[in-house]
Amino acid sequence: MTIGVLGAGQLGRMLALAGYPLGMDFLFLDQAAGTPAHQVAPSLIGPFTDAALLGDLARRCEVVTFDWENVPAAALDALDSRVRIAPPRAALSTAQDRLLEKELFATLRIRTNRNQAVDSPADLARAVRTIGLPGVLKTRRLGYDGKGQFVLRKPADVDAAWQALGNAPLLYEEMVPFDYEVSAIGVRGLDGRFAMYPLNRNLHEDGILRLTRAPWKAPRLEAAARRVLRRVMQHFDYVGVLAIEFFVRRGQLLANEMAPRVHNSGHWTIEGAVTSQFENHLRAITGLPLGDTAPRGHSAMINLIGTLPRRTALLAEPGVYLHDYGKQARVGRKLGHVTIVETTGRRADLRAARLMRRLKTRST
Amino acid sequence: MTIGVLGAGQLGRMLALAGYPLGMDFLFLDQAAGTPAHQVAPSLIGPFTDAALLGDLARRCEVVTFDWENVPAAALDALDSRVRIAPPRAALSTAQDRLLEKELFATLRIRTNRNQAVDSPADLARAVRTIGLPGVLKTRRLGYDGKGQFVLRKPADVDAAWQALGNAPLLYEEMVPFDYEVSAIGVRGLDGRFAMYPLNRNLHEDGILRLTRAPWKAPRLEAAARRVLRRVMQHFDYVGVLAIEFFVRRGQLLANEMAPRVHNSGHWTIEGAVTSQFENHLRAITGLPLGDTAPRGHSAMINLIGTLPRRTALLAEPGVYLHDYGKQARVGRKLGHVTIVETTGRRADLRAARLMRRLKTRST
Repeated sequence: MTIGVLGAGQLGRMLALAGYPLGMDFLFLDQAAGTPAHQVAPSLIGPFTDAALLGDLARRCEVVTFDWENVPAAALDALDSRVRIAPPRAALSTAQDRLLEKELFATLRIRTNRNQAVDSPADLARAVRTIGLPGVLKTRRLGYDGKGQFVLRKPADVDAAWQALGNAPLLYEEMVPFDYEVSAIGVRGLDGRFAMYPLNRNLHEDGILRLTRAPWKAPRLEAAARRVLRRVMQHFDYVGVLAIEFFVRRGQLLANEMAPRVHNSGHWTIEGAVTSQFENHLRAITGLPLGDTAPRGHSAMINLIGTLPRRTALLAEPGVYLHDYGKQARVGRKLGHVTIVETTGRRADLRAARLMRRLKTRST
Repeated sequence: MTIGVLGAGQLGRMLALAGYPLGMDFLFLDQAAGTPAHQVAPSLIGPFTDAALLGDLARRCEVVTFDWENVPAAALDALDSRVRIAPPRAALSTAQDRLLEKELFATLRIRTNRNQAVDSPADLARAVRTIGLPGVLKTRRLGYDGKGQFVLRKPADVDAAWQALGNAPLLYEEMVPFDYEVSAIGVRGLDGRFAMYPLNRNLHEDGILRLTRAPWKAPRLEAAARRVLRRVMQHFDYVGVLAIEFFVRRGQLLANEMAPRVHNSGHWTIEGAVTSQFENHLRAITGLPLGDTAPRGHSAMINLIGTLPRRTALLAEPGVYLHDYGKQARVGRKLGHVTIVETTGRRADLRAARLMRRLKTRST
């Protein structure tokens, strides 16, 4: 069975590495050659909207999925009648647009921060009046890792924010003084069965995920996150892995955003759960039974951003799992991650803190 | 860094899948296309002795290893001055010849069964007189999974055995009435550091490994096996993973054979040890620090031979790890394996027994 994947980044690479042992083959489509997934699997190279390439993909694959949220709708239009697509297109198009996402949360009565669409300077002024400061102006589309965002702290920031982002449809959001961030990762099978991984606690720096600790033991929050995940998945008749990021404030969840795919905050599941999120995504979209999402120990996942530390130093530590995505180094770029699995949460915390300090010293 | 691999079978496939996360690239050389490793990594296709292909391999790779014991000496001769080879050639040529292997064991004072070289009917008659019956006549070279062997139980078998195998150099061995079989897998780094996995208990059927249980808790045997591994590795100034199979008789080890490579009885280490034998082989041959060989739980590995069971049924069981090698089904062929990891040895035993019964019912 061949799995088609739109986008050939590190998520696609880890999907392929999880699928090979199950006897699956892969075919990627991406604009560039030499991508992380292309290094480990065949790739069609060209625009996502190239009719011939899409035809090739549809013909050669049993199911098509994506490793990237910003796949153009036109690509999926071209594939739609010819091959099964999972997760469902509606979930993807909702996740592609922050406004649709917020509207979905409202429809499904999922708590989120206050927000307002902004299409003009007048809209922005109105939104700032209604919601107040501080707040974040975000492009509705094509944002990731903190890109396409502008934080407004004082009235004078309104003009600068409009100058920076005003040429695209926008959303103004209340800036939530949250206590910390968590994410929930679930998977739903072709038969509607559902499973959820233990809750992840996440630490972002400069808008980029830096650290995930899992399982994050917060039974009440986890139960609430499970209800949210199920509600969103049922709404879309979802198939595959879905991640939702939340702010936690005074013991309550506030949905921030969703990702209709495997998620960076779930990378720890490769070594830290019985079945990884990558294998479970593949099981789900191919109609196989879902795998056990129970944790194996206590994990900490640290993103390697901008530069890769020397492998020799990293691997000299026992039980450090390295995942090098095979990418060229560039400031702010996710080049890989490491996972530590420990017998207690406290040990995982301590080792992660030590490793993060070491990585920082090294990169300066 | 690109790793060259002679032979592109399932061992090579699992090497590549273990090496990609470490940021390694692979280039295989094998006679056939579409091999298990070729499905996941680039391959040069042609005879192992093709000078142009070997030149290409030497030029493009930092180190060359093998996933197959029967790599022709001529291939290694051609590579020798041009690229580093690990494990060392001497270990490979010893493992390729049962007589040299037995002589090595004798030189290093490693207990093995009684044996005698056989090159003529007169030799065979003499060997049977000296060693007695029952015994096993084996080709010195190119034997695997019970192939190239003839069991002699009564004097009349001598002629038939000679008829069956007499056109190749042979070895006659005492048939040891052993209690059970174990194997020891160790790894030695470029810097001479050594690590050993917990002992494996193995069950063979029709000459093919069927089941491995690890860790097999037998501290005295494990310590003895460690001494044997170290002695062999020191002898060769070995680099990489080495496996030695033993018969256990009355609480004593009797070395049966060695494999200078990752080994089928170590496949459980992918999910059942902190660092897999595949990753550790790659770490060793590239000069990286060795990874922790400690077990994670109690594992049972079952080979899938001849036919692959339906994935849906197999994966419906929680915590079953499937490894499909992507091979065409054929009687007696290893097509894949499954590993079960449990919290106790007893649970691993019970689940493995149940799964093996199910697989047998299914394949008849």
